[in-house]
Amino acid sequence: MINITLPDGSVKEFEKNSTAIDVAKSISEGLARNVISASFNGATVETTTPLTTDGSLVLYTFNDAEGKKAFWHSSAHVLAQTILEFHPTAKLTIGPAIDNGFYYDIDLGNEMISEKDFPKIEKRFLELARGKHEFTMRSVSKADALSLYKGENNPYKVELIEGLIDGDITFCDHDNFTDLCRGGHIPNTGLIKAIKIMNVAGAYWRGDEKNNQLTRIYGISFPKQKLLTEYLELLEEAKKRDHRKLGKELELFTFSQKVGQGLPLWLPKGAALRSRLEDFLKDAQKKAGYEMVMTPHIGQKELYVTSGHYAKYGEDSFQPITTPKDDEEFLLKPMNCPHHCEVYNFKPYSYKDLPKRFAEFGTVYRYEQSGELHGLTRVRGFTQDDAHIFCTPDQLDQEFKNVIDLVLYVFGSLGFEDFTAQVSIRDMDNLEKYIGDPDTWDKAENAIISAATDKGLNFVIEEGEAAFYGPKLDFMVKDALGRSWQLGTIQVDYTLPERFDLTYKGSDNQLHRPVMIHRAPFGSMERFIAVLLEHTGGNFPLWLTPEQVIVLPISEKYQKYTEKVLHLLENSEIRALVDNRSEKTGRKIRDAEVSKIPFMVIVGEKEEKEGTVSVRKHGEGDLGTFTIDEFISLIEEEIKKIKVEF
Amino acid sequence: MINITLPDGSVKEFEKNSTAIDVAKSISEGLARNVISASFNGATVETTTPLTTDGSLVLYTFNDAEGKKAFWHSSAHVLAQTILEFHPTAKLTIGPAIDNGFYYDIDLGNEMISEKDFPKIEKRFLELARGKHEFTMRSVSKADALSLYKGENNPYKVELIEGLIDGDITFCDHDNFTDLCRGGHIPNTGLIKAIKIMNVAGAYWRGDEKNNQLTRIYGISFPKQKLLTEYLELLEEAKKRDHRKLGKELELFTFSQKVGQGLPLWLPKGAALRSRLEDFLKDAQKKAGYEMVMTPHIGQKELYVTSGHYAKYGEDSFQPITTPKDDEEFLLKPMNCPHHCEVYNFKPYSYKDLPKRFAEFGTVYRYEQSGELHGLTRVRGFTQDDAHIFCTPDQLDQEFKNVIDLVLYVFGSLGFEDFTAQVSIRDMDNLEKYIGDPDTWDKAENAIISAATDKGLNFVIEEGEAAFYGPKLDFMVKDALGRSWQLGTIQVDYTLPERFDLTYKGSDNQLHRPVMIHRAPFGSMERFIAVLLEHTGGNFPLWLTPEQVIVLPISEKYQKYTEKVLHLLENSEIRALVDNRSEKTGRKIRDAEVSKIPFMVIVGEKEEKEGTVSVRKHGEGDLGTFTIDEFISLIEEEIKKIKVEF
Repeated sequence: MINITLPDGSVKEFEKNSTAIDVAKSISEGLARNVISASFNGATVETTTPLTTDGSLVLYTFNDAEGKKAFWHSSAHVLAQTILEFHPTAKLTIGPAIDNGFYYDIDLGNEMISEKDFPKIEKRFLELARGKHEFTMRSVSKADALSLYKGENNPYKVELIEGLIDGDITFCDHDNFTDLCRGGHIPNTGLIKAIKIMNVAGAYWRGDEKNNQLTRIYGISFPKQKLLTEYLELLEEAKKRDHRKLGKELELFTFSQKVGQGLPLWLPKGAALRSRLEDFLKDAQKKAGYEMVMTPHIGQKELYVTSGHYAKYGEDSFQPITTPKDDEEFLLKPMNCPHHCEVYNFKPYSYKDLPKRFAEFGTVYRYEQSGELHGLTRVRGFTQDDAHIFCTPDQLDQEFKNVIDLVLYVFGSLGFEDFTAQVSIRDMDNLEKYIGDPDTWDKAENAIISAATDKGLNFVIEEGEAAFYGPKLDFMVKDALGRSWQLGTIQVDYTLPERFDLTYKGSDNQLHRPVMIHRAPFGSMERFIAVLLEHTGGNFPLWLTPEQVIVLPISEKYQKYTEKVLHLLENSEIRALVDNRSEKTGRKIRDAEVSKIPFMVIVGEKEEKEGTVSVRKHGEGDLGTFTIDEFISLIEEEIKKIKVEF
Repeated sequence: MINITLPDGSVKEFEKNSTAIDVAKSISEGLARNVISASFNGATVETTTPLTTDGSLVLYTFNDAEGKKAFWHSSAHVLAQTILEFHPTAKLTIGPAIDNGFYYDIDLGNEMISEKDFPKIEKRFLELARGKHEFTMRSVSKADALSLYKGENNPYKVELIEGLIDGDITFCDHDNFTDLCRGGHIPNTGLIKAIKIMNVAGAYWRGDEKNNQLTRIYGISFPKQKLLTEYLELLEEAKKRDHRKLGKELELFTFSQKVGQGLPLWLPKGAALRSRLEDFLKDAQKKAGYEMVMTPHIGQKELYVTSGHYAKYGEDSFQPITTPKDDEEFLLKPMNCPHHCEVYNFKPYSYKDLPKRFAEFGTVYRYEQSGELHGLTRVRGFTQDDAHIFCTPDQLDQEFKNVIDLVLYVFGSLGFEDFTAQVSIRDMDNLEKYIGDPDTWDKAENAIISAATDKGLNFVIEEGEAAFYGPKLDFMVKDALGRSWQLGTIQVDYTLPERFDLTYKGSDNQLHRPVMIHRAPFGSMERFIAVLLEHTGGNFPLWLTPEQVIVLPISEKYQKYTEKVLHLLENSEIRALVDNRSEKTGRKIRDAEVSKIPFMVIVGEKEEKEGTVSVRKHGEGDLGTFTIDEFISLIEEEIKKIKVEF
């Protein structure tokens, strides 16, 4: 008998040579049906591998990342089997699972696969899968392995095998198909109920352009047809919500080849939106006792050597700026913190003056390779909604809680309801990695955990994920398509106060080091707006959207009344515009829908006579007739639904 | 007889060998008494030089820059004469007039002059001056000139004379003193009624540190004692108002050696002040139809090659930023215009879409040598209140007028009442220097002149001062101490629309080039705030000042009432704070005066009972007792006195 420990800590006795599936069955038949992969003592095993010793077993279904990986890796085998049927002389190379599906890189010789071949590949793939062929692993000697692939004249597999140690080489068989493979499969091919070939592309063997070009075939598969349908719908929706596409359509931002890649230019509507977001946070920060400062976008190289940023970013980032006369070197600032430390150092403080909370919408520049740039989410210049709180150790707990309140207020006002948090603490087995007094760390970690608990956050604790300078709390939001984005962060820092020799005079009349909190609820304005665009599909919360109301006069006869309506709306601080074109009303409505303006207000003879407006809501249609005052109240109520007072 | 043309264009006949003084006498005795120097046909002459041909004569008094120059140059002769009496072996070198006074560089050998010698030098100077010795010029042969100074063993004068052409060498005599001199003196020493030795400093002969070190003696002199007294008072006041001193005292901004010279850090109060200034302009700009944009602080080198800025700033400025992987070069932006051209290029425009007015508080970076840096007026990074208007040629006139209105509104709201303007147009004799069609230039120059005239500006036209890309209008304000500062500018530009291929579709359905207006009413936020500090001595206009009211409770017994007062003030958007220290009220008032807070509000038993406040105004004293509402109205009225609606 062997003892199997499950993730909940329970230990059960099983006969030796029981498998993961056997263990699952002992829990429930339902679980056994859904288990598709497993790990034993931290290593991936087949669900059919006989377990011979005591150990910890984790069972995975398709809902787990590990389960998906096994599912997609197994699907790659079936894909290769399918391709070989159509292209018998093709030479296989490697076929891994990726974040969304899998690919297989294949040398097709002079043959080709194009989009029109996808349906027949998918059809044959499913026929093969339906055979419910089990995946079985077997060990092979290096000589036998080499002999097989040399016989097939496949230099790629030969090269792979030559890099392996004899005794470590395994093959996986299913049906009539065999592949060199390290393992980690689902029980049998029959679990794969849906497949979609996504794309073919060229790829060099081992990513080196000096090698042969291969054909990379991307696919994704699912245990239910419904999941594939949903996935393809999600992809379609994500394409529509791509912030790069929406940013252009809504005229929010652009990039210029002349100015440079990864350096966004904010167009009037985008700049206004960003200012509104900034003003929103400024107001909340003012109430929370922050003070705005402004610092330059460059600093002497020595500043970043002092802060440690040069060691971290220096060589891989924008290179130093020299000057024609003086012997000085400057860097584009990668962070605002060193500047804020110098702001703190302007004058001496007593403990009664603390906390000091310095905030700045600080634009920082970090080099990214051109191939890694992506819209507003990977850029070379971005603006952090940055602030640094300098406080006494005793104040840390309360300050941290206050920052969480601020972050929750920000997320709430922007319609992010689904988010999680991660508390990153020290690796207790490697305490030498961290700077600062262990007692202070204990206190800070406890402060973060208790603050997160008190505030009712849904959080996980990750040991070993703390920065060397302090523990932190990161926020991940889920967007409307279920995708996760890392946004705000709150970090405790004991290092910079040391490095910049920051002090305050305590009640004991001695000098002490303040603790520093770095925090950015948005994270980066650019990234946040990108996420907000993809989350809302451009239908921003009403308080934030560039234009709230468009007035559509039925004809120019009602120009005077139109102007009156516009004037009354503007007097109530409602952002409104008029479509004065001599187009039909239907056309004006359609165009306003495309522009995603939340409210359309139609005015004609009846409305002028009655002093009313006919209101349509974007995506919802006719709301009926309102007096202008009623309509203004409607908008104000709508805003209050989401944006509350801080 | 000779014909003398005067500056007003009138021509008068005089006997040959008449002098400038004779001409002055023919106009009035009073003028003759005040004339201290003259130029004839564009060259400086002595007032006593006999005029032998027809020509144009200009007469100068001490009120003219030319008059001051002659006065101070003449004073340098008397200073040298004085010094030689105290230090007979001293060797004279050169002694020019400067912007404020004059200096003489003297080799004193082993002797020294220090501050305690100033009174005796000034006393003897005036005794010599009172001798009313005439300055008389005479020609000397090179041989005689060399012989004189070789005899005196003066290598400096010898070196100077060796550089001169025989026949061009003149000496000036007065009393027993003779100096090598090109001329340009006042009639006699008796006109110098007041002298102040300002300073002694070391200076190398010919400014070269390899040469002998000389003693430079700075002085300033006046035709009336009263003028000297006023000048010294002005100096004293300017020292008090030095924006670097006030910036520190009022905690507005600081510099950090670690961040780098010439890179201001805005402290909370300064950042708030600057934001208020920016918001003030943003509001006005919004009403004037501007749209804010945001652009990065760097751009590819090629961008500035295209714009022509690289040719202008490239080599002398911050050097290009390279990257570790991609083959790209970036520059810190010296100007926002190229970025705004690329914003314009985001989409095509029709003539109906113009003008487009893109505004940005854009921080630009320009290298200045460390020795040239000065507080906020000469920095390496500064923020322009920049905007670029893209319009059709037909719209130029109206747009220019609108910009003038905006500039006048800005100056008015900030208490600059004394300003002049300069229209810079082409040099009509060198038209090849300018880019663009001459007809368009005519139109633009006329537009500027007619706009300046229509708006009732006090302006001068300077031919040849236009930029190569277009004519412009610059504003010079006079501060409270009478000093002139160049601030706002409005420039017309035909070049960048060409270089960036900017177009719009005209009513003829053809593509045309827009005209561009660059404008910045403040010029630079840093420089403007410096000037404002020196102009107001830190007593900012009430609407702008960091704190408008300080509440001074007589004791902590009145804390509740104090908080009520504070709350009511804050509800009326009045920036108020409380001095809660347990100091005596007198001390609190003195400290509030030092902080330059405009209103002090004292609350005690009587005030609490009556629901009133006792009000003191900074620099004025007690204003009496007011209800809180009355006091709020008082402040609101005070603000309206200067800051009107745009």
